Amino acid sequence: MSRIDGREAAVLRPITITPGFQAFADGSVLIEQGRTRVICSVSMEEKVPGFLRNSGTGWVTAEYAMLPAATSSRTPRESTQGKVSGRSQEIQRLVGRSLRAVTDLAGLGERSFTVDCDVIQADAGTRTAAISGSYVALYLAFNKLVRMGVLKKMPLVTQVAAVSVVIRNNAILLDPTYAEDGGADVDFNLVMNSNGEFIEIQGTAEQKPFSRDTMDSVFNLAEKGIREIFEIQNAILAGI
Amino acid sequence: MSRIDGREAAVLRPITITPGFQAFADGSVLIEQGRTRVICSVSMEEKVPGFLRNSGTGWVTAEYAMLPAATSSRTPRESTQGKVSGRSQEIQRLVGRSLRAVTDLAGLGERSFTVDCDVIQADAGTRTAAISGSYVALYLAFNKLVRMGVLKKMPLVTQVAAVSVVIRNNAILLDPTYAEDGGADVDFNLVMNSNGEFIEIQGTAEQKPFSRDTMDSVFNLAEKGIREIFEIQNAILAGI
Amino acid sequence: MSRIDGREAAVLRPITITPGFQAFADGSVLIEQGRTRVICSVSMEEKVPGFLRNSGTGWVTAEYAMLPAATSSRTPRESTQGKVSGRSQEIQRLVGRSLRAVTDLAGLGERSFTVDCDVIQADAGTRTAAISGSYVALYLAFNKLVRMGVLKKMPLVTQVAAVSVVIRNNAILLDPTYAEDGGADVDFNLVMNSNGEFIEIQGTAEQKPFSRDTMDSVFNLAEKGIREIFEIQNAILAGI
Amino acid sequence: MSRIDGREAAVLRPITITPGFQAFADGSVLIEQGRTRVICSVSMEEKVPGFLRNSGTGWVTAEYAMLPAATSSRTPRESTQGKVSGRSQEIQRLVGRSLRAVTDLAGLGERSFTVDCDVIQADAGTRTAAISGSYVALYLAFNKLVRMGVLKKMPLVTQVAAVSVVIRNNAILLDPTYAEDGGADVDFNLVMNSNGEFIEIQGTAEQKPFSRDTMDSVFNLAEKGIREIFEIQNAILAGI
Amino acid sequence: MSRIDGREAAVLRPITITPGFQAFADGSVLIEQGRTRVICSVSMEEKVPGFLRNSGTGWVTAEYAMLPAATSSRTPRESTQGKVSGRSQEIQRLVGRSLRAVTDLAGLGERSFTVDCDVIQADAGTRTAAISGSYVALYLAFNKLVRMGVLKKMPLVTQVAAVSVVIRNNAILLDPTYAEDGGADVDFNLVMNSNGEFIEIQGTAEQKPFSRDTMDSVFNLAEKGIREIFEIQNAILAGI
Amino acid sequence: MSRIDGREAAVLRPITITPGFQAFADGSVLIEQGRTRVICSVSMEEKVPGFLRNSGTGWVTAEYAMLPAATSSRTPRESTQGKVSGRSQEIQRLVGRSLRAVTDLAGLGERSFTVDCDVIQADAGTRTAAISGSYVALYLAFNKLVRMGVLKKMPLVTQVAAVSVVIRNNAILLDPTYAEDGGADVDFNLVMNSNGEFIEIQGTAEQKPFSRDTMDSVFNLAEKGIREIFEIQNAILAGI
Repeated sequence: MSRIDGREAAVLRPITITPGFQAFADGSVLIEQGRTRVICSVSMEEKVPGFLRNSGTGWVTAEYAMLPAATSSRTPRESTQGKVSGRSQEIQRLVGRSLRAVTDLAGLGERSFTVDCDVIQADAGTRTAAISGSYVALYLAFNKLVRMGVLKKMPLVTQVAAVSVVIRNNAILLDPTYAEDGGADVDFNLVMNSNGEFIEIQGTAEQKPFSRDTMDSVFNLAEKGIREIFEIQNAILAGI
Repeated sequence: MSRIDGREAAVLRPITITPGFQAFADGSVLIEQGRTRVICSVSMEEKVPGFLRNSGTGWVTAEYAMLPAATSSRTPRESTQGKVSGRSQEIQRLVGRSLRAVTDLAGLGERSFTVDCDVIQADAGTRTAAISGSYVALYLAFNKLVRMGVLKKMPLVTQVAAVSVVIRNNAILLDPTYAEDGGADVDFNLVMNSNGEFIEIQGTAEQKPFSRDTMDSVFNLAEKGIREIFEIQNAILAGI
Repeated sequence: MSRIDGREAAVLRPITITPGFQAFADGSVLIEQGRTRVICSVSMEEKVPGFLRNSGTGWVTAEYAMLPAATSSRTPRESTQGKVSGRSQEIQRLVGRSLRAVTDLAGLGERSFTVDCDVIQADAGTRTAAISGSYVALYLAFNKLVRMGVLKKMPLVTQVAAVSVVIRNNAILLDPTYAEDGGADVDFNLVMNSNGEFIEIQGTAEQKPFSRDTMDSVFNLAEKGIREIFEIQNAILAGI
Repeated sequence: MSRIDGREAAVLRPITITPGFQAFADGSVLIEQGRTRVICSVSMEEKVPGFLRNSGTGWVTAEYAMLPAATSSRTPRESTQGKVSGRSQEIQRLVGRSLRAVTDLAGLGERSFTVDCDVIQADAGTRTAAISGSYVALYLAFNKLVRMGVLKKMPLVTQVAAVSVVIRNNAILLDPTYAEDGGADVDFNLVMNSNGEFIEIQGTAEQKPFSRDTMDSVFNLAEKGIREIFEIQNAILAGI
Repeated sequence: MSRIDGREAAVLRPITITPGFQAFADGSVLIEQGRTRVICSVSMEEKVPGFLRNSGTGWVTAEYAMLPAATSSRTPRESTQGKVSGRSQEIQRLVGRSLRAVTDLAGLGERSFTVDCDVIQADAGTRTAAISGSYVALYLAFNKLVRMGVLKKMPLVTQVAAVSVVIRNNAILLDPTYAEDGGADVDFNLVMNSNGEFIEIQGTAEQKPFSRDTMDSVFNLAEKGIREIFEIQNAILAGI
Repeated sequence: MSRIDGREAAVLRPITITPGFQAFADGSVLIEQGRTRVICSVSMEEKVPGFLRNSGTGWVTAEYAMLPAATSSRTPRESTQGKVSGRSQEIQRLVGRSLRAVTDLAGLGERSFTVDCDVIQADAGTRTAAISGSYVALYLAFNKLVRMGVLKKMPLVTQVAAVSVVIRNNAILLDPTYAEDGGADVDFNLVMNSNGEFIEIQGTAEQKPFSRDTMDSVFNLAEKGIREIFEIQNAILAGI
């Protein structure tokens, strides 16, 4: 049975990664996954948070936000609300953890890298696209610093990418769109490194709880999708 | 190899649930899990959030906070910071989702139930204790309303409880204390219903990614622990 | 004429003080005065506010908050309101002043003591219970530091305790409950030291102004009540 | 022994009340008490807070703030701090209560009166000057509404005024300046109506606790000062 | 004498306007003016601010923000600062006024149009590019509503566009880049309609005040630049 | 055709400047322009913002606010709103720029001067009155510091003053009142130094765009008005 947009259950949306999207950033990409589009840009600072001062070690953190017109009914700005929403905080903490998990923090020296993930268009999967895109932006920033001699060697240990999977009418669907994500029974976000190990798993039964067997199928499908994203990341990075 | 506090890897800390802890609440418990102590109290209101108005359906939501002196070095109040932290928001969204997953929302009528989870003492596992305790507090509140004739029948579909599991030096440890949780390689929080289905899974590799096989062992251990908590919940509820 | 709960006008509610309520605090009690229950816990820090830096002198300050389910209709959290209410600020300033008035601040060295007063259950008199309980918590914290050799001698000059008194239908009632406090004509909060001197007096005519003679009777009654609380404090402290 | 500014202990500073200071307000005065200068202005609105809707009863409330250059070292604006300070809230609650205590709220109909007390110059006693001045501003506003036929009769039951008294080197001083208030041992603020009854008493031992006898002397002195202010208020109101 | 980027004093940077940049908005463009890039997107709502309720008239308003990585050293998010900066507010008020000045508000019915101007890359002139681009986005949104029959006729009275001009070393330079804008003596932002009338003029002597004669030259140059932008707008709109 | 208040189009309202209005400020005036009344007071601090540290150069900045009862319908306080409004920020940035443009910042040494402009009564033209009055207050503060030997010489380069002009029914009116400003077609605020050069020009077509010719007439009229204000400023300063 094919999906609303004609895809099979196990097929990712087309992914395009455009490097150098924000010219003044240290590393920047626009990642497009179907109609979902996220800018991921890295800014380096020569200082670290208090808990790392005099540790010789660096830090990677992320911020996530949505442009108001990214969604079909306009989302109010968090700046006019006076605070970052719970959802945004949850997502940016996830992106930050995922990137730190593949970074050799000691290899950064006492430097901080802020990865800004700004969603231009939201058709579901923005947090996983943010992770997959940010890896490339971070690679570009680190690569520039290695070439400038600021970093001695590439401080990335493995690749990292992420996909979401939903269960809907008993079908397990890879990389759902907003229309598929809306009333899904369960929603998974899975982050994996290029050794096939998981960095983060999140599964939430919005409507219907799930069994151990179902989880196995979900993990299989996610792993397939993430391996495809690793190849797309590599193709881009091979070209720089 | 036994643990810091002498427990075996698969053993929960002692759990005590004291009903009626806050006398003015509609339902209230103090849950103590080792040295972790959380008050869970339910307040009912005869109104629902905007998106449910005129739907005939109710809502369950949670708020989570820590008393400043709950931790060994004092935690500043969120009120003086002027905002709820990202961590608190993440936790209260998790607690709310877990409780809604076992509640027959249509059976509530247009009523809201706020579950306040206030941590008196924090020795790790506060979010999972909050879920396990809140289930009992919610049961007490619903039960009171059923007896008063406000609700026609008990609007709980199954039980819900949660545990955390960490991986540390390759050992998989059930219900870790703060000392065990601190530098753990991976941290899992798992929420299950009494049909043995999962409602929420979260696994985060703080230090070292994890394999599919490891996950299987984690889920087995969590299931064992949660089934024990169901029995403790039932013993309390049998007594009312 | 006896009162709603059967007490005579000049009788305090039963008071229980449980030491060590929050195990990780430097000093902690749960004070229960009738159905009013307040946790008072002390946290020490090795630094002082700017205006005391390099003065050799320490500081004692208080924070006050109510758990949402402490009241019969739920009180919204100040953290979600984004600010500490005027009422809470007024109370925590009063508690802080009362404790500083009996403390030898120079004897603390450059250390700050924050006393957190968190109301678990509110049946009137929470601010006066907070003062009476905080004295014991502060004693416990100072005592621990004296035994550890951090402080040379006990930096408490006298005891301090507080009661409230209301005038209602021309009756002067000691230690009123919420039901008595509600529509009272005048509301007094009085703080005294164990030399029988006043540290703070506050009298507010909510409905009907009061004469000098009335005040005299109020002060007599308050003094009687506070002297009884001193004995309760002493009984607890004798046991440690 | 005469005081810094040559006054005897029992003498008020010169008081001037200028009516009509803010021409667009419903009632307005500038009260000058020595170098302390406060604008008190009343604005009427044809609506009441939620708890009075459909009660037929009105409300009087106050707001208090200081201009930044009112003090010898500039005070930052509360608007740039993003919140009203604890001190300002305490004061405006006191002013509001004092005015409500002499107002026939039922006689206002469902109308709200906001009394803005803005301190142009602060040489101590700003909260008591705010009360004494606001009474006149409120009288002017009510008087205008009576003449317009909006109110049937003057809704003021008695006059209200306030003074502060300090104890300093064992001397009891009426209406202290900033220089006298600074390191005083005890600080009293007393609010009385023109029947000689107290509406609010506040006494705070900043340095040294005080006895019952001392309080008697303080109340005597305060009463004398307040009676003099009643005459000054009457002289102004006689002229309108 | 040619400029840093080789342009003559009276030459605009190359301008590209890409329609349909955010697919879910009612109207959207990306405007690129040299390296300055701004997304302008319009969202319609079927309601108006309070002061227009039951007036039959609509409203147009703007919001302006910069992505953190738009500038060469990262700009902190306004959401994490908890408020919209003074600069952003000034700009969004200017953009809103400029758009309302060419809109037939009565022709909108009771509908609100929010124009979001989000700066992806900032090389000076972001506020004027925001105005020139927003006109096209607004045209696209209105055009769609006319075709859908929601609006009876195009509610735009004239075109609107804007440029900035600086004075630097006595040279008057059209459309400066960030490098030219930095230490300029005077900075002008000028908004004109397609009848050659001004809608807004702003001139600020950052370093050196300016004469009436200088202003004349500035207005001449601005008018030339704005007329060129009108042609670029028209070319885009001719293609839809 | 004469105006609402009987003035000719080119006539200013009567202006009075009272020096020494806030006695504790370093320099202070009350400026009254018709019924518009603004307090302008200067406070000096021996420190500078971060970007000037170790530069040997000082800074002048302004803050602007309105008392709630300054307007005929009460304006809520920005402190209770929790933020400075966009309008206030716009005005205080304008006042600050205007004052810096006539100050020899290097001549201040590393000192900051905050000019507080507080509107007691608002009948239009508050921002321009704030500029004209603040110049005098700043002169008074600088003069005091020169006499004290803190500053070597007067750090003011020229005078500065400002007026507003509106276009209304094709008439160009100098220094409009609130009644004239309300529905005006165009609103100009113009800031000039005593060399006849402009420091800031702002023209906003609220209703009807304006031609180059109109602007010429506006500038002529503004220049006439500002020259008259310079004489009023000088008369005051001659007297000190």
